[in-house]
Amino acid sequence: MISKHVELLEAYTPGEQTRDTEVIKLNTNENPYPPSPKVKECLASFDSALLRLYPDPAFMKVRERIAQINGCSVKQVFVGNGSDEILALCTRAFVENNGSIGYFEPSYSLYPVLTNIRDVEKRPVRLNSDFTWNMPPDYRADLFLMTNPNAPTSMMFDEMVVAQFCSSFEGVVLLDEAYVDFADDNCMDLATAADNSNTLVMRTLSKSFSLAGIRFGYLIGSEPLINALYKIKDSYNMDMLTLEIGLAALSDLEYMQSNVARIRDSRRKMREALISKGWTVCNSQSNFIFARPPNGDAKRVFEELKKHKIFVRYFPGEYTGEYLRITIGSEEQCAALLDAL
Amino acid sequence: MISKHVELLEAYTPGEQTRDTEVIKLNTNENPYPPSPKVKECLASFDSALLRLYPDPAFMKVRERIAQINGCSVKQVFVGNGSDEILALCTRAFVENNGSIGYFEPSYSLYPVLTNIRDVEKRPVRLNSDFTWNMPPDYRADLFLMTNPNAPTSMMFDEMVVAQFCSSFEGVVLLDEAYVDFADDNCMDLATAADNSNTLVMRTLSKSFSLAGIRFGYLIGSEPLINALYKIKDSYNMDMLTLEIGLAALSDLEYMQSNVARIRDSRRKMREALISKGWTVCNSQSNFIFARPPNGDAKRVFEELKKHKIFVRYFPGEYTGEYLRITIGSEEQCAALLDAL
Repeated sequence: MISKHVELLEAYTPGEQTRDTEVIKLNTNENPYPPSPKVKECLASFDSALLRLYPDPAFMKVRERIAQINGCSVKQVFVGNGSDEILALCTRAFVENNGSIGYFEPSYSLYPVLTNIRDVEKRPVRLNSDFTWNMPPDYRADLFLMTNPNAPTSMMFDEMVVAQFCSSFEGVVLLDEAYVDFADDNCMDLATAADNSNTLVMRTLSKSFSLAGIRFGYLIGSEPLINALYKIKDSYNMDMLTLEIGLAALSDLEYMQSNVARIRDSRRKMREALISKGWTVCNSQSNFIFARPPNGDAKRVFEELKKHKIFVRYFPGEYTGEYLRITIGSEEQCAALLDAL
Repeated sequence: MISKHVELLEAYTPGEQTRDTEVIKLNTNENPYPPSPKVKECLASFDSALLRLYPDPAFMKVRERIAQINGCSVKQVFVGNGSDEILALCTRAFVENNGSIGYFEPSYSLYPVLTNIRDVEKRPVRLNSDFTWNMPPDYRADLFLMTNPNAPTSMMFDEMVVAQFCSSFEGVVLLDEAYVDFADDNCMDLATAADNSNTLVMRTLSKSFSLAGIRFGYLIGSEPLINALYKIKDSYNMDMLTLEIGLAALSDLEYMQSNVARIRDSRRKMREALISKGWTVCNSQSNFIFARPPNGDAKRVFEELKKHKIFVRYFPGEYTGEYLRITIGSEEQCAALLDAL
């Protein structure tokens, strides 16, 4: 009774979500600071009686705010139950059953899982050892998923290089900018500028806005592509509270930016401290660092830190097995990590 | 760049979600009463700082409560971002690319849309003119979606008849019991009893629990079927607040039941009043009625009511075009409707 390809699937493994409040949790790139005070106010003033009604299926209020922030039309804005939902919808809207999906290796480890769920061909492109890329000649795919800044490497691909790739690529390119608020640059222009662009840019409130708990991602792109997603989404994919809280957070960019500045400052200090201990540290443009301990024995450091109740993320494998991905926590959490090391 | 079948799609049209607060909204089967006071308490005491963290991807606390209520194991429970998400996941988990999906006509008008989105064969079965069924000989499909009580007819198929159908059907049967708390009976036993049952039972908090705004549906069935859904769901498909609010509502069944009793009482009175005006009224087991005005000119009544700012639902078509689907509102709303008629 179960589809053959689903029987064979291995599910995605998210970073461990412990309930142990003593743990210093630097393994899922959560923001160490709470969301905007406007979120608190929004919750406090929300009339729970409204929950008896369905939410606005077209979520116009948040779309208007997102369009305003990014300088585009509301018709160029899609909103999803987390970026995960948007990614899954794109694998169905832009890929035929006999199609293919491309992505870099290493990158977000959900991409191959999504491709397996969609049951189409995987067309991964291995990054060079310095985590830059050279596309294979005649490379093609229906959809290319690119995290920028990349995860787990933390590094940003240059906008010019990305723009060149997008303009030469025949399918749809989705630039997943989950971490872009922590970077010096972004590629939003590629999604908003041209009318018939093949390029989509995705953002989330999970990282810079400290709202992983509400599940709010959005996507910007040309109207025909965005419209395809509206056709196949669940009728009411965004719940009423998520929409209200998202709007509150998006109306307080200054608060987000001040948290981002703190995290960038901690990131710089963490990088310097690790380099002084002999680590190799990638040039992070995100809210985590990707770093190699002096002897490359990342697995042992991961396990030892866990014993000290400090969770970081370890990805076994040829490229990533000598590195750890460490979320930038609060000043206190960073200090505790350095102490433990 | 867009999949061919998505280009051709027509999106599902939900009932009109007006922002006009003067409208008496009897068109989307929302509950006229607010959710449990425990929901209000839950929101008031919720610490918004927690939203910086991801929710529990396996949502164990609500699963445990749902398992307790329905007398099954937590491994038999799946929770989705509204029943809509669960339906969409089932069309992928239990149907091959060359497969088929069955459902009754008339029934929930989302089913053919979901089948188009999944791009597989539609195998509808027309109900008799009294809204009962006779399955065609040798009927088969990979997945059969059955709303019980049915919408828009409001009537319940007998458990014995349903059980017989399920046991003879070769694919997966999903019994969508969105309205079952308003009925005299239910089919949950078919999903919890047998270890390797092909039958799934779906419930929602949108109707009887007055929580359409939070998007919370759940599904009960045999472990292998439920496990297939966990494999293909988005990593964090349920947000933290929805889980907390859902748990609060599910811990106050008495409140839900007292609202249901009020609505059933209003339903009985509405039925009697309409019959006395010469309407034909189906024997409703749900929180709405399906009724035919004396001359069958449902479209005109629909339009006239709209002029009076009373929204009901009208489905054009051979079977349904002479009927209106009218949500049972509060006592005041029911009185206003009868006045307008």
